[in-house]
Amino acid sequence: MPFDMNLVQRGARLRRSPFFAATQRHGATAYTVYNHMLFPICFADLEEEYWHLVNGVTLWDVAVERQVEITGPDALAFTSMLTPRDLTRCAVGQGKYVVITADDGGIINDPVLLRLGENHFWLALADSDALLWARGVALKSGLRVTIREPDVSPLQIQGPRAKEVVRTLFGEAALRLRYYYFLETALDDIPVVVTRTGWTGEVGYEIYLRDGSRGDELWERIMDAGRPHGIRPTGPSDIRRIEAGILNWGADMTMENNVYEVGLDYLVDDGKSSDYIGRAALERIKAAGVTRKLVGIEIDGARIEMNTARWPVTAGGDGVGQVTSAIWSPRLKKNIGYAMVPVAHASPGAVLSVNLPDVGRRRATVVPKPFVDARKDIPKS
Amino acid sequence: MPFDMNLVQRGARLRRSPFFAATQRHGATAYTVYNHMLFPICFADLEEEYWHLVNGVTLWDVAVERQVEITGPDALAFTSMLTPRDLTRCAVGQGKYVVITADDGGIINDPVLLRLGENHFWLALADSDALLWARGVALKSGLRVTIREPDVSPLQIQGPRAKEVVRTLFGEAALRLRYYYFLETALDDIPVVVTRTGWTGEVGYEIYLRDGSRGDELWERIMDAGRPHGIRPTGPSDIRRIEAGILNWGADMTMENNVYEVGLDYLVDDGKSSDYIGRAALERIKAAGVTRKLVGIEIDGARIEMNTARWPVTAGGDGVGQVTSAIWSPRLKKNIGYAMVPVAHASPGAVLSVNLPDVGRRRATVVPKPFVDARKDIPKS
Repeated sequence: MPFDMNLVQRGARLRRSPFFAATQRHGATAYTVYNHMLFPICFADLEEEYWHLVNGVTLWDVAVERQVEITGPDALAFTSMLTPRDLTRCAVGQGKYVVITADDGGIINDPVLLRLGENHFWLALADSDALLWARGVALKSGLRVTIREPDVSPLQIQGPRAKEVVRTLFGEAALRLRYYYFLETALDDIPVVVTRTGWTGEVGYEIYLRDGSRGDELWERIMDAGRPHGIRPTGPSDIRRIEAGILNWGADMTMENNVYEVGLDYLVDDGKSSDYIGRAALERIKAAGVTRKLVGIEIDGARIEMNTARWPVTAGGDGVGQVTSAIWSPRLKKNIGYAMVPVAHASPGAVLSVNLPDVGRRRATVVPKPFVDARKDIPKS
Repeated sequence: MPFDMNLVQRGARLRRSPFFAATQRHGATAYTVYNHMLFPICFADLEEEYWHLVNGVTLWDVAVERQVEITGPDALAFTSMLTPRDLTRCAVGQGKYVVITADDGGIINDPVLLRLGENHFWLALADSDALLWARGVALKSGLRVTIREPDVSPLQIQGPRAKEVVRTLFGEAALRLRYYYFLETALDDIPVVVTRTGWTGEVGYEIYLRDGSRGDELWERIMDAGRPHGIRPTGPSDIRRIEAGILNWGADMTMENNVYEVGLDYLVDDGKSSDYIGRAALERIKAAGVTRKLVGIEIDGARIEMNTARWPVTAGGDGVGQVTSAIWSPRLKKNIGYAMVPVAHASPGAVLSVNLPDVGRRRATVVPKPFVDARKDIPKS
């Protein structure tokens, strides 16, 4: 059912990214909405863009990863309250993938956190208003913090040839970045933060623009530097991120889930000395064990279209769970995805049945994640 | 630029309403995204739907007005903390249009609040995750409350013939509802709340479905009851709501604005005895006076398309503000809308200039709101 973008973005409610004009000029054909902003997700063909990501280099407008900035004398103490990760082990200049947890252990958001100073943090958000959560928590916390959205808009440069583009733009210093570390720098006089992060399992970087008025300029500078390396603007690749076992907040996990259900146990630092929101709940859940798990699945049969809603999962005729993401991997020549199922059905080899709309039942098998290993490409320090 | 809905809703991140299948069956042609859900905004033609709203009766899927439910022994005290309205003056069975305020007086959301019991409230949200704000505030509040999203999905029945539809469905009791009051009832055995509310300035009701599994059934029951009265499914009408002076959160006001800037002064009950978040800031702002105001404007010249971003406003050549909403009113045969401008330019008659993309400069004049009075249709009690 085709429809008109001018209706989707009718009115000024949905914000445009500083790169919006560039994405239009470069031919974006589809936008979704993410964090109340327009998010370009396709420029040509999704499978073609996937192949370009795994073989070349791609540029994505991910300004929808809206930032929460936490500063003030108690910023470390406050930010430490928000997440089970031990931030005393996050150096200035380092980032971490974190979960923001509710008091019941539910996952409110799963941002990349950057530590810009002893008491200066950014959270690059998934699709929920964690700014409101943080400001609400701060209110009666007694801690001296300022929490706001700064003028910061990320881009991703992803793919095996990303390094060549980043070298051209920022020189060798950027290439020396270890995974999840970052560099505060400028491109000519455009202020940016360059991070060694991404949503792909491929080599990748993010460029956080610190001045929204320079979006168009930064985009074209990157395209110019990338042209000799065949850079193309694309959307993020669901195929590649599912191959890599990466979860999408809102689809594969929500506030109804905890880290132990979705396999993000490693985001809880058990030795963390300070308290954090959800700690008691998570300790209780861990001790009791979870009743359901998000597992990798392969779905038999011909190529499927990506799910646009959760698909029912049955075992022996009984409804037991839901598929949260499912897609055809052109590289594996298989339908792969994730399903939330009771632990009794969560072991590799377990056989399930998935009900696809307009297609009908398909046999599915539980398999380990990831489906494709991340590229081993951490630079020697 | 046309694009494909299957891309916008790619993956299971965006939730579907319990009425989604019905809106598809009844021919929705455009959806936007609101509160992380798909929101049907057009079924045929926007101006044709406007005329049907002002002359007949329309049915809207507004399940995107996601609810925050607040219960527990301290629910009244807690909810009172969230808003400048005096909730001791809101009876059980009554609703209020409220603002949820941040500590700096900024507007976090502008829901309709329903009081279902002494300590039982629902907030029908505009497009921000005020659930996260409320849960964050509750954390260290020392108050005993439970805050969650209940299984509740509203529809709107709006237009001068709405009463006939509601009479057929719910009898005379529903017609006796005064503005902003509600009735807990059932349609056959489908549990609903019927409120005398809406987003139009027309006669209107909302039907809050309390069991998401019955969405399709409720939709068809309403269509059946409405058929003799010519009911049609439509999206909400920006034309009618702007004529009525109704604001759209995210477009006409955000967290950067306070009630005094946007003309919602009446949502602050100065005599309120209990404290609330943002009180000190709002008292300070009121005493100092605001520096900018959201005003009604008329834009000269030929019919404009609705704005899809904020348009720059100048006065005497200087940038002074932005148009937040602007649209052609087929009834007034004028371009009408709102602009945020400094108080020096906010008096009726003030002349401004608006820069329309692909059109150029147009003369605009500040005028009083609303552009069309709301229908006087409050039943005698």
